[in-house]
Amino acid sequence: MAPAAIVTNGTTTVTPTVTTRFASVYSEVQNSRVDHKLRLPSVLQAPFAIVDGPKSSAAGNPDEIAKLFPYLFGQPSAALVPAGENTALPHRKLKIGVVLSGGQAPGGHNVISGIYDYLQQSASGSTLYGFKGGPAGIMKGKYVELNSDYIYPYRNQGGFDMICSGRDKIETPEQFKQAEETATKLDLDGLVVIGGDDSNTNACLLAENFRSKNLKTQVLGCPKTIDGDLKSKEVPTSFGFDTACKIYAEMIGNVMIDARSTGKYYHFVRLMGRAASHITLECALQTHPNITIIGEEVAAKKLTLKNVTDYIVDVICKRAEDNYNYGVILIPEGLIDFIPEVQHLIAELNEILAHETVDEGGLWKKKLTDQSLELFEFLPQAIQEQLMLERDPHGNVQVAKIETEKMLIEMVETELGKRKQEGKYNGEFKGQSHFFGYEGRCGLPTNFDANYCYALGYGAGALLHSGKTGLISSVGNLCAPVEEWTVGGTALTSLMDVERRHGKFKPVIKKAMVELEGAPFKKFASLRDEWALKNCYTSPGPIQFTGPGSDAVSHTLLLESGFQI
Amino acid sequence: MAPAAIVTNGTTTVTPTVTTRFASVYSEVQNSRVDHKLRLPSVLQAPFAIVDGPKSSAAGNPDEIAKLFPYLFGQPSAALVPAGENTALPHRKLKIGVVLSGGQAPGGHNVISGIYDYLQQSASGSTLYGFKGGPAGIMKGKYVELNSDYIYPYRNQGGFDMICSGRDKIETPEQFKQAEETATKLDLDGLVVIGGDDSNTNACLLAENFRSKNLKTQVLGCPKTIDGDLKSKEVPTSFGFDTACKIYAEMIGNVMIDARSTGKYYHFVRLMGRAASHITLECALQTHPNITIIGEEVAAKKLTLKNVTDYIVDVICKRAEDNYNYGVILIPEGLIDFIPEVQHLIAELNEILAHETVDEGGLWKKKLTDQSLELFEFLPQAIQEQLMLERDPHGNVQVAKIETEKMLIEMVETELGKRKQEGKYNGEFKGQSHFFGYEGRCGLPTNFDANYCYALGYGAGALLHSGKTGLISSVGNLCAPVEEWTVGGTALTSLMDVERRHGKFKPVIKKAMVELEGAPFKKFASLRDEWALKNCYTSPGPIQFTGPGSDAVSHTLLLESGFQI
Repeated sequence: MAPAAIVTNGTTTVTPTVTTRFASVYSEVQNSRVDHKLRLPSVLQAPFAIVDGPKSSAAGNPDEIAKLFPYLFGQPSAALVPAGENTALPHRKLKIGVVLSGGQAPGGHNVISGIYDYLQQSASGSTLYGFKGGPAGIMKGKYVELNSDYIYPYRNQGGFDMICSGRDKIETPEQFKQAEETATKLDLDGLVVIGGDDSNTNACLLAENFRSKNLKTQVLGCPKTIDGDLKSKEVPTSFGFDTACKIYAEMIGNVMIDARSTGKYYHFVRLMGRAASHITLECALQTHPNITIIGEEVAAKKLTLKNVTDYIVDVICKRAEDNYNYGVILIPEGLIDFIPEVQHLIAELNEILAHETVDEGGLWKKKLTDQSLELFEFLPQAIQEQLMLERDPHGNVQVAKIETEKMLIEMVETELGKRKQEGKYNGEFKGQSHFFGYEGRCGLPTNFDANYCYALGYGAGALLHSGKTGLISSVGNLCAPVEEWTVGGTALTSLMDVERRHGKFKPVIKKAMVELEGAPFKKFASLRDEWALKNCYTSPGPIQFTGPGSDAVSHTLLLESGFQI
Repeated sequence: MAPAAIVTNGTTTVTPTVTTRFASVYSEVQNSRVDHKLRLPSVLQAPFAIVDGPKSSAAGNPDEIAKLFPYLFGQPSAALVPAGENTALPHRKLKIGVVLSGGQAPGGHNVISGIYDYLQQSASGSTLYGFKGGPAGIMKGKYVELNSDYIYPYRNQGGFDMICSGRDKIETPEQFKQAEETATKLDLDGLVVIGGDDSNTNACLLAENFRSKNLKTQVLGCPKTIDGDLKSKEVPTSFGFDTACKIYAEMIGNVMIDARSTGKYYHFVRLMGRAASHITLECALQTHPNITIIGEEVAAKKLTLKNVTDYIVDVICKRAEDNYNYGVILIPEGLIDFIPEVQHLIAELNEILAHETVDEGGLWKKKLTDQSLELFEFLPQAIQEQLMLERDPHGNVQVAKIETEKMLIEMVETELGKRKQEGKYNGEFKGQSHFFGYEGRCGLPTNFDANYCYALGYGAGALLHSGKTGLISSVGNLCAPVEEWTVGGTALTSLMDVERRHGKFKPVIKKAMVELEGAPFKKFASLRDEWALKNCYTSPGPIQFTGPGSDAVSHTLLLESGFQI
């Protein structure tokens, strides 16, 4: 029952400034996870060979991508296949760097463990450097040599604190030069960039740059983001999505049972995920809330804030007729970014506030277009004030600071008041707001994410060993048992399109949005009317590491892979 | 992987208005819990006899309690002991009612299951009625007959939705009469009231009343509250505390790893528990945050809001010297209720706002005492406005609506700004606020709460069977294996003291506050300085139902029972 012994870091390679988990006492569950045995895809358990696919293209504007990546464009995807001992890769000692880039996602430590174990297993005598604090660590040459003792306490643990992460990018010629210097100084054979869409774009630029300079350093990417918006045909999901959604779904399930038991609250739950609504959709599929707003649908249907409010109010009124004065409503963090009229209002406000004095009488409002004025007047007073007063250092309205769930509660309350006066609503309404975000980014990875990340890392090691660059580690067939998972790499250029910025084409990996024609959304859409009025709540419960439910795969992944839920 | 079949409620005794879980699809984990086999204390597995202890007294003012409870005062505690077949209780068919009272706590359904199973096992042919919607169900005679099919889907499940709860009290002579009518109409032999301190006081009044009217209906209480503030020597903990704390501790642990990985946020986490800080203390013991505020200590030391702010700021400044510009801070929901100066200010504001016009120039502030004015000016502007504007229907300031964690962030930010100007602080501060509350009240009960509640209910059945009234079901020796737990009942009058209200003595079960001389607080106090500066974070991870950690007992209970952690 008492916490187990301190898991210390006994290595001598740790420099004094390295963040270790030294002072931490591990919980029983953390401790048991450290020694949890991971499963590896069969193809990684025996000698393998690499099979290249056909020449690849780009996600859009292939001609421009070809110009931007003259060395890498057209690369085939690579697949690992079983091979005889004689066709196995020749032994090499490799010097590899790894970096964590961007926001935390459960499983990052296992990617690093996977790379390390591959090197130990199949390229003994190799060296693994962990760049500290994200890409800045590459540019500044801040790194630590990773060894077994160093890595051990982080196995199957959440967080990115083994080497920490950062949001810097390697963009300018000077920064590329710094990266080259570090790669040369450390004599790096390869570099694995663990990150989201931007970081993988960056990884590809780095791979192209190294190749163009005739540097031997190969660069691979790894798909990381709890938001689930970095995926493609060959990269079925990004790591961390599974764990984060399960953590949020546990909380949502608990709140649902509370709502039904108490019978008097509407819980408005805002969920992390600004650019895409995958998290919200997955949580809805796991828990069956009464109302779920999907940003991509709001955008596609060009809904206004009033439309969204009315939809919520309509459901609340119908439920009141059945004496249900409670419910659960899921809202994606980025909702208002999906509403065009809000974007217009904010653009106009930024313009006006930069040049006009705001008079108390409200004459300044005449500068707003009719549509924006109408929206502004529709917003709750607290939000109006927030828009006017809380601005960033550039004087811009801070959209990210708006607590959408609280704003909606106020708007719903006002509208319900009107309907009550009109005799169209006779219930009681109490809104409770929640934001589930940070608590999902660093949870202990689920069995799925633990195995998936380990395979991503192990596979990245194999791809580097075989000389590949400019690929993103891709592990597929994820709804099957781990042993049947496929392992390979996908050309990063094949995921790219261009955006025009400042008159120049810039390569980008497009964020994968919720597809309104995709299986997950269609499943949700086919059920939501029933969920709205009946109480079909499902409570997934806490993530289990053994026993029932412990090997579950996300609903999104199942549905996208053609399975039913 | 797909959710299992719908768990329906096939009973025919269900009236159409009863909340069932009909529309719910159970998750894999929920499903596995339904059939989870509970463990029973050995003494409940075989014939038992009841042994009465010595005559009891009261927690305070025994003479007054004796006057208020002439029939029940002095009752001994009862203990179940093993007995031969011939000394076992004679078979009786019993008619028992059960009611859930007050806020949700994980495990309530298992108390009901325990009562039911006792009756099935040892008093076959008995009837169990569930009063619906709390004590109002008793007064209005709203109930449902519970049978195996009805109860089945709720076994080991969170929530109170089997029969729902309510916050009404049976207080007036008229209300007592209604209760008598229901008891008579249903020919009730017994009633189990599952609730907190108020509800158990109410249960005792009801027991006394029934006894005084010569009604046969015995009344027992059951200790429920996630807040953990209903406990005594013989009632080591209230149910739900274990589960709720583990849910919050999971989230806190995740946020800690996030804080360390990101390196740039101070997370201010407000935790449910208004009257006492047990939840905050337990979560601190489980996770080792940098700063924990315990309301009882703040009150005992008569700290001001400025003192609390300074304490936090001092730690932040010291951490900045070590380049730690991040951390986790726990705050009990009821913090400001513990600060006398805040209470004074609010009392003065209520008085002034009721009688004065608030002028924009601020002349009204002259009505405040110097101390209150100083505090008011110290508060962030948003809080000042909230105090002035958001009032309840009686015109009173709504203290409960103040988001203490956000208030503290603002005050800390302001103070850090000053120290920076003075050259005493050179770090960066970003505060992130969290409130963990509703998500902990209806989680799937831990193995501890599942077994504990089942024993509480099973024991209550045994006590009713043996003719007891006016006791609270008490299960002890909780740090030992379930089989070794003790089972009995404690005289509710022995937990009581009186409070003078409107010139009359009113009996109350005093809330158990965090004892500053108790083992849990002392353990915390002995470690907090180390936790403040080092990062001793522990991440308990999600609640497990099998394997490592699944049978853990709360740290509070272990320490209060004389164990070390």
